[in-house]
Amino acid sequence: MTKNEIETLIQLLARLPGLGPRSARRAALHLIAKREQLLLPLASALQRTGEAIRTCSRCGNIDTADPCGICVDARRQPGVICVVEQVGDLWALERSGAFKGRYHVLGGTLSALDGRGPAQLRIGSLVERATAPEVEEVILALGATVDGQTTAHYVAERLATSGAAVTRLAHGVPVGGELDYLDDGTLTAALKARRPA
Amino acid sequence: MTKNEIETLIQLLARLPGLGPRSARRAALHLIAKREQLLLPLASALQRTGEAIRTCSRCGNIDTADPCGICVDARRQPGVICVVEQVGDLWALERSGAFKGRYHVLGGTLSALDGRGPAQLRIGSLVERATAPEVEEVILALGATVDGQTTAHYVAERLATSGAAVTRLAHGVPVGGELDYLDDGTLTAALKARRPA
Repeated sequence: MTKNEIETLIQLLARLPGLGPRSARRAALHLIAKREQLLLPLASALQRTGEAIRTCSRCGNIDTADPCGICVDARRQPGVICVVEQVGDLWALERSGAFKGRYHVLGGTLSALDGRGPAQLRIGSLVERATAPEVEEVILALGATVDGQTTAHYVAERLATSGAAVTRLAHGVPVGGELDYLDDGTLTAALKARRPA
Repeated sequence: MTKNEIETLIQLLARLPGLGPRSARRAALHLIAKREQLLLPLASALQRTGEAIRTCSRCGNIDTADPCGICVDARRQPGVICVVEQVGDLWALERSGAFKGRYHVLGGTLSALDGRGPAQLRIGSLVERATAPEVEEVILALGATVDGQTTAHYVAERLATSGAAVTRLAHGVPVGGELDYLDDGTLTAALKARRPA
């Protein structure tokens, strides 16, 4: 049975996050069964994405243009920069529709364990952007993890002389979340930051 | 933000079994981050699979050749045909390495609910193959579901005059399985089919 093409396909699919060897085989069979509707469109979507994709040299977002659509969008506030770890976080904020400024993607967090120091992240260019006179606020929207908070501290210190106000996301009870299931840290933070009802 | 290529990619990825909208976004970001090692190879593997894939006109297997590699492999017993529902079942049996004959892929089971009758399955060509003088045995390796067993009954009847012996897979305790977690049907079948230790 020489099914080299199929085996190659399964091995590549198995490297996607969320798919293992077993689900990769299912996915491959599904793709083959839906050749016209799924397999060929996916092949060309990957090809086109691979050709068109750029990393924005200003903010680190990925897009088909450089600078990216957000950086050149004149309707977005130029005075507020939201700092995120990864492009996925930027997408999440965009889906929420709650932020109308610009972004800066660090490309990860500082991590002694993984050997990521400030030089591996887009921190220099952030400081440069924040120093521009039109920038009034930098929001640090980093993860509430140890590495995320370490990075937030470090970035805040680097931005201290930039002239922009540096803020963080609020901690608290997630909307729709039940108190019973929340960890102590979140409950403590939500209590401390309580507001008049 | 004009990320049409990426959005198309995410929508297509979300249609794979095992991936939802959320994991499709993660997969897309992973693909974009690993452009050279994963995205472009996957694009060309899909393209090549889409071009090369054939359904074997003899047994219904999918392969890059027709007849497929198993049907033309002279080292495999021509006297035994193993009937399976889907190509995935054929792959599972091939991985086990326990079967050295040829296959016949029905393409599903009979199902009144889904409107699949005998004409929608590769049953006519199976009867034809089984009637050949060199075929001694037809093994029905269909699922132990209601539809699978209905189909097995029907196929066995159609094969009654073919001259080949018709057999089924044994029911019993799965290797590595604990009795405690087994359903009553399996336990009953395993008891009935008990053998001297």
